[in-house]
Amino acid sequence: MTPPYQTSLFIKVRDYECDMQGIVNNAVYQNYLEHGRHEYLIERGLDFAQITESGVHLVVVRAELDYKRPLKSGLRFKVMSHLERVSRLKFVFKQKILSPDERQVYLEAVIFCVSLNRGGRPSPFKDLEALL
Amino acid sequence: MTPPYQTSLFIKVRDYECDMQGIVNNAVYQNYLEHGRHEYLIERGLDFAQITESGVHLVVVRAELDYKRPLKSGLRFKVMSHLERVSRLKFVFKQKILSPDERQVYLEAVIFCVSLNRGGRPSPFKDLEALL
Amino acid sequence: MTPPYQTSLFIKVRDYECDMQGIVNNAVYQNYLEHGRHEYLIERGLDFAQITESGVHLVVVRAELDYKRPLKSGLRFKVMSHLERVSRLKFVFKQKILSPDERQVYLEAVIFCVSLNRGGRPSPFKDLEALL
Amino acid sequence: MTPPYQTSLFIKVRDYECDMQGIVNNAVYQNYLEHGRHEYLIERGLDFAQITESGVHLVVVRAELDYKRPLKSGLRFKVMSHLERVSRLKFVFKQKILSPDERQVYLEAVIFCVSLNRGGRPSPFKDLEALL
Repeated sequence: MTPPYQTSLFIKVRDYECDMQGIVNNAVYQNYLEHGRHEYLIERGLDFAQITESGVHLVVVRAELDYKRPLKSGLRFKVMSHLERVSRLKFVFKQKILSPDERQVYLEAVIFCVSLNRGGRPSPFKDLEALL
Repeated sequence: MTPPYQTSLFIKVRDYECDMQGIVNNAVYQNYLEHGRHEYLIERGLDFAQITESGVHLVVVRAELDYKRPLKSGLRFKVMSHLERVSRLKFVFKQKILSPDERQVYLEAVIFCVSLNRGGRPSPFKDLEALL
Repeated sequence: MTPPYQTSLFIKVRDYECDMQGIVNNAVYQNYLEHGRHEYLIERGLDFAQITESGVHLVVVRAELDYKRPLKSGLRFKVMSHLERVSRLKFVFKQKILSPDERQVYLEAVIFCVSLNRGGRPSPFKDLEALL
Repeated sequence: MTPPYQTSLFIKVRDYECDMQGIVNNAVYQNYLEHGRHEYLIERGLDFAQITESGVHLVVVRAELDYKRPLKSGLRFKVMSHLERVSRLKFVFKQKILSPDERQVYLEAVIFCVSLNRGGRPSPFKDLEALL
């Protein structure tokens, strides 16, 4: 896989995440991806809850999600995440949801984010830039 | 707005849909959009639950979501939906989330779907094609 | 129905709220009830989001939920809410989820709440007491 | 702790589970408890998804939830579950959500369940009775 995905998070599907089709609901994948991004940050010393409390808002401005095959009850999977800079104010998480052995791809996603300052304006966030 | 959006669904933000940032969580927009698509179908005589029970699975294969400005506690908005054919087996919902007076755009989305038959294979779904 | 339920909120089941059993997931009823309570407060001039921002935390300390019959895809229902005082620091919402014509009872609930001050201690909340 | 809790499930709070109060939303605890019950069954050879597909519906008829202290972003906890018979047709899960070292109790719950046959009538479910 290129680019190199730096963080893996292992999760198991919970039954309430499945809908009447018996598969994980489309919206829930965004929950998994968000959790993957926040764990990515935690591993690098950045706590999303603390960042939010400090007045900096990291927000998603665009999400592209390719659903490759459905996750079902009881399946285990991993969320892989990789962070890249797009411009001075915008960065992107490239993320994949895979079977633990990486043979099955369930979802591929590209999540564009910006950081907003207390005034709600896009503003560089030094702690995040230090990761790039 | 082009293309002409044919169905409007009016919703009010529920507080449990907001996260620690005090705004509607990114994943919840996909809930709104799904509800908008299913109401679109209902208005045209197609009931998603019945379709699912009949063995046909309408599934999302790709979602593109542009988050324009955040929805907050108590806000009212409408979900507008428009269906188009992409190819023999693929169709697309173009959707917007707007303020009731249409002056504010909260989200724009393009949702690609296919219908799967009982065997899990892409297969034309006549009832849906009749809408196009 | 005794006690007199003062606020009604009309809702329609959204398909993503249903789980693999094809009925609304148990946890989702608590979403409906919370939304019913917050609308109850809004109608009386109390905005939950503003209360939270002001540093007062209204929290649930006990919930009793009796599931009478399942809500299914497409059903419309109403949430009825009634507020009573239990003690100087504790109050209770009695809530019902009913069919619009009130012939079907889907759920009955008793939700005990307290208000916490900035320090996290139970403390009378005057604006709420004024409703009782 | 009495009665002896037989199954422990370790979970970490995900940030999207927190609401505008910065703590896990009340409804989400029911998600954790359901996941705890289903894992309890899985460990004993009963798969909830397969049971549902076979036409048997295990449903909650009453839930009593005592919220002791709030779960917050990043916290790890365990869900402990214990199954008991109430009557020929009704059984109960006693569940607790605790800190991993068991010093903090976040929630205590009593969840009453029945099994429904294909016709929707309460009916003994042999596979479950074998666990009691």
